[in-house]
Amino acid sequence: MPVIAQQHDSGQVLMLAWMDQEALRRTLATGQVTYWSRSRGEYWVKGATSGHVQRLKTAALDCDGDTLLLSVEQTGPACHTGTTSCFTGREIPVNREQERS
Amino acid sequence: MPVIAQQHDSGQVLMLAWMDQEALRRTLATGQVTYWSRSRGEYWVKGATSGHVQRLKTAALDCDGDTLLLSVEQTGPACHTGTTSCFTGREIPVNREQERS
Repeated sequence: MPVIAQQHDSGQVLMLAWMDQEALRRTLATGQVTYWSRSRGEYWVKGATSGHVQRLKTAALDCDGDTLLLSVEQTGPACHTGTTSCFTGREIPVNREQERS
Repeated sequence: MPVIAQQHDSGQVLMLAWMDQEALRRTLATGQVTYWSRSRGEYWVKGATSGHVQRLKTAALDCDGDTLLLSVEQTGPACHTGTTSCFTGREIPVNREQERS
C-alpha cells in the first residue's frame, strides 16, 4: 500500500513509498521505517546506506484501510537527490486565474 | 498516480486518492481538485455531491515524477466519514520501547 511519510514537527510531507504487511511489521517492530521497493522487489530500511533514516513516531491508516500515514523523525534529507523532501522544488504551474475565481 | 492532499495552512494530510493525466489536467484547468476513481472507473470532482470541495493552491511532483502532492483549501471535512482527515482517529499502535531506543 502507499505510505506517506510526514515530518512530525514541521508537518512537511517528505515522500511517498510502499509497504506490504511484512514491511509494516518490521517498521512497527523496530521503529525504523522500512519500505518495500516495487522496482527492486526487496525491503529497504530507509537510510540504511545513506544514514538518512526515518524514526517512526506515529502511524495511521486511512478510512479505507489501504493507505498509511507515518509521522517520522527524518535524519538528513529525505530525498535521494539531497532535497529535504522528494517534493521540494518540483512545483508544477497552477492556473492562478482559476484559483481566484 | 497516487495524490496526497494536504491542507495548505495547517499542514494536515487530508487524504490520498488517484489521478490520471486527464484528472490532473481538469484539476489544473479548473482549480477544483478532480480525482480518478479506480473502483468506479470515473472522474470525480471532490465534493461535487457533499460540497466538501478542495480548491487547489499548489501542486508538486516528486523526484520520480510519479506522485503528486497538492496543497489545498479544504471546505468541510475531507473524509466521507465526516472526519477532518481520512487518517483522523485511525492510529495504529507503535512500539514505544523501540521508538525510544
